[in-house]
Amino acid sequence: MSDNGFTLWFTGLSGAGKTTISHILADELNARGQKFEILDGDIVRENLSKGLGFSKEDRDTNIRRIAFVADLLSRNGTPVITAAISPYREIRDEAREMMGDRFIEVYIHASVDACAERDVKGLYAKAFSGEIKEFTGVSDPYEEPLNPEVVIKTEEEEPEESAAILLAYLEERELIPAAVKS
Amino acid sequence: MSDNGFTLWFTGLSGAGKTTISHILADELNARGQKFEILDGDIVRENLSKGLGFSKEDRDTNIRRIAFVADLLSRNGTPVITAAISPYREIRDEAREMMGDRFIEVYIHASVDACAERDVKGLYAKAFSGEIKEFTGVSDPYEEPLNPEVVIKTEEEEPEESAAILLAYLEERELIPAAVKS
Repeated sequence: MSDNGFTLWFTGLSGAGKTTISHILADELNARGQKFEILDGDIVRENLSKGLGFSKEDRDTNIRRIAFVADLLSRNGTPVITAAISPYREIRDEAREMMGDRFIEVYIHASVDACAERDVKGLYAKAFSGEIKEFTGVSDPYEEPLNPEVVIKTEEEEPEESAAILLAYLEERELIPAAVKS
Repeated sequence: MSDNGFTLWFTGLSGAGKTTISHILADELNARGQKFEILDGDIVRENLSKGLGFSKEDRDTNIRRIAFVADLLSRNGTPVITAAISPYREIRDEAREMMGDRFIEVYIHASVDACAERDVKGLYAKAFSGEIKEFTGVSDPYEEPLNPEVVIKTEEEEPEESAAILLAYLEERELIPAAVKS
């Protein structure tokens, strides 16, 4: 097992595929005996950020907390996958500053239209009707990464393909063990 | 290096010696090449719990967040020392439930009188005058642990002695490497 901590920092719209891809990655990392933790947006909101809303200030606070925990884990050799929208560039860059080489920004890209069409949780419909306010990509900003380490295009790739791209990236950097040949 | 994660969960009044002892432990663990993290009450309030106050509900939320992070670290093999007052038994027991055998409750004991006499930060004077409200041990409850794994009596022991007791406990349980003989 590798003792190289890193943080795979997913960023992208609601419905872009962050959670789905993180679950496929998790299965593969488990199969390789690689320990890791997933800090999913919803889980973090429940455990670290209850009471925070979706204003810029509250979003920033939420993302800073994720970064604080991801840094603690990754600097001790535990890889982390964060899967939160993290819409603001400045705060993502703060996280990068904090973690240095351990920080791997992964832009999980899909257009608003594509995410709205999927609309698995029914959130986009509510955002367009105004029932949900401050919805990223609809009524709240999303600032695209300028130089992400990896770009995943979920309108073109199947989730398994996206996961394979990320695994190949991590293998290439020797951050995870190679797949066991069967 | 040991890969056994554990959480040394300090609990005790403000001024009882939690931070002082954690720093002495830190020096010794560093000397032994043992990785670890300290989650000090003040640091956690800054990074995970800004905006929370000192009502029972807010204190509980703060302590649950510390437990959430301590669990993440310790279950991945990173030892943690938490140094927050954590005045309520029920929430400490929640943390114990969550971490099982990894949870080591350490009661850092000193009487209110002794802590007030030390009063390094001048907080007790303000608590007695009423300038600070909801101050644990003065105007807010502190629930002593019923069955802590270790009791440290800082009115009777020097901080170095207290740290030595904790190191001996961890060695006995084979959670840290023995001291290098010089």
